[in-house]
Amino acid sequence: MNTYASRLHAKIREKGNPVCVGLDPRLNQLPTAILPVGFEPSNATWDVSAKLYEEFCCRIVDVVAPLVPVVKPQAAFFEELGPPGTLALAEVIRYARAAGLIVICDAKRGDIGSTAEAYARAYLAGEHVDSAVWGADALTVNPYLGTDTLQPFVDIATERGAGLYVLVRTSNPGAGTFQDRMTDGVRLFEHVAGAVEALSVQTSEGETYGSIGAVVGATYPEELRQLRDIMPHVPLLVPGYGSQGGSAADVAGAFDAEGLGAVVNSSRGIIFAANQEPYRSQYGPEDWEQAVKAATQAMIEDLAKHTSTSSLRA
Amino acid sequence: MNTYASRLHAKIREKGNPVCVGLDPRLNQLPTAILPVGFEPSNATWDVSAKLYEEFCCRIVDVVAPLVPVVKPQAAFFEELGPPGTLALAEVIRYARAAGLIVICDAKRGDIGSTAEAYARAYLAGEHVDSAVWGADALTVNPYLGTDTLQPFVDIATERGAGLYVLVRTSNPGAGTFQDRMTDGVRLFEHVAGAVEALSVQTSEGETYGSIGAVVGATYPEELRQLRDIMPHVPLLVPGYGSQGGSAADVAGAFDAEGLGAVVNSSRGIIFAANQEPYRSQYGPEDWEQAVKAATQAMIEDLAKHTSTSSLRA
Repeated sequence: MNTYASRLHAKIREKGNPVCVGLDPRLNQLPTAILPVGFEPSNATWDVSAKLYEEFCCRIVDVVAPLVPVVKPQAAFFEELGPPGTLALAEVIRYARAAGLIVICDAKRGDIGSTAEAYARAYLAGEHVDSAVWGADALTVNPYLGTDTLQPFVDIATERGAGLYVLVRTSNPGAGTFQDRMTDGVRLFEHVAGAVEALSVQTSEGETYGSIGAVVGATYPEELRQLRDIMPHVPLLVPGYGSQGGSAADVAGAFDAEGLGAVVNSSRGIIFAANQEPYRSQYGPEDWEQAVKAATQAMIEDLAKHTSTSSLRA
Repeated sequence: MNTYASRLHAKIREKGNPVCVGLDPRLNQLPTAILPVGFEPSNATWDVSAKLYEEFCCRIVDVVAPLVPVVKPQAAFFEELGPPGTLALAEVIRYARAAGLIVICDAKRGDIGSTAEAYARAYLAGEHVDSAVWGADALTVNPYLGTDTLQPFVDIATERGAGLYVLVRTSNPGAGTFQDRMTDGVRLFEHVAGAVEALSVQTSEGETYGSIGAVVGATYPEELRQLRDIMPHVPLLVPGYGSQGGSAADVAGAFDAEGLGAVVNSSRGIIFAANQEPYRSQYGPEDWEQAVKAATQAMIEDLAKHTSTSSLRA
């Protein structure tokens, strides 16, 4: 059994960058080139919309699979389309894994005991994609219910060579409401970070990184740097680069000296690049995949320029 | 538009009790009477299993709809069966609502901004079941990401006459890991409770209770009583009665003098009553619905004996 951390880092080294492309499809932003004639988002059936999400995401996968190590589908947008959407999510995960990508399912699940186990079995395939219906390599989870509720996720992840990313410090403006509250001289998110570090050490099998990761937003660079120190064995998932305001310099603190230890996610800035400048002016609506490719390459270069991930190319 | 709180309390008054039946189906505990000949949980396809969950839950609904005001399907067990499971969940919700029950979808969702909106649109139907694909009256949500991430759920709930139950103090043994941490002289869950109270007041439209509720475990009776005081405008969802160890006396503090302000959930103790004493000895395997009915009636009586919910019968 290869651990999640070892598979992740092998893939990051192979691609020479830590970019994670977020698959967050939205009906009203899909490229017109893939829409059926006369398509209206407000009248579309769930079946038709789900098929469009699947096609859009699989075509993104075709563009980014040669370039980046990881994709992260956002479960919420697929769930919004009901059961057909959940089927499309399973197909997209399967397609991305067949293309050699590591897949993090961003579903932010969390529950107690046997209920947590049910979620873990549903989403954590780990090394073998067929081990779960949504066959992801890793899943995002929420720690509020307590560390005992993370354990069933950890157990099933370990059994299957899968990973977890526990929410520690999120990227939204109000992240601090509860996460920043001082308790025993440190902030709540630091306590959560300590618990995640302990879980990850359990799963590290003598390597630097274990398979229990943490979500830490790019929009809080100081906290990010501090959390890298508190959690030396924890792979990070860093959302908030690009559209949410985080820069390459902001995420520099997420990486170790070799450029490992983190993946940085961009969603809208890549998948909807064709709707945004400078790409909108450079590429016609039919060439939306070229815009996706150019935006992906620009992010890779930006990170290499401002972070230790340049070492991955040595 | 009738608010969630007004619809909930009308239903509690109509039935004369605050019982919520948790629909947590498990393949290995289904009544043998509903299984196809030769059925083996380990070999069952997701389609067949999902159809069994649907049949089992709808038959539970048939038994409990005349007796109780609320049911709470647990999304995780349906998701474990993949897209067919998510379809079964939608059907069970629709069936329960058609039977006149209030439906709380227990999915513990939580995410930021437009992602939170997508979840809210998917699960919060509110007054009109067709407003969402999983057409629940209310949804459980996780507050860890911050109060700004609850707002999209609150907005859509308010628009549709739906409700939310924010996790405040959960029923699991390790609930205190983070929830109990002292910060500014009070515990974290009390801060969360304060935020939920403020949100619920916004939605109360001059009535005592708003539509933003809180999940508070029956397994911590002192905290429950204290939280009832901190959140006078917040309807409570109290899990942990029965199989998890909470008694009727333990949940007494959840109710106001009129017996309103809370619903108490039991899942396994009711839906799998036929597998447990005293019901197993009293009812044959074919009479599992009689066991469900007897266990539901016993819970109603137990609550009436030990809590102010006896006033609901006046």
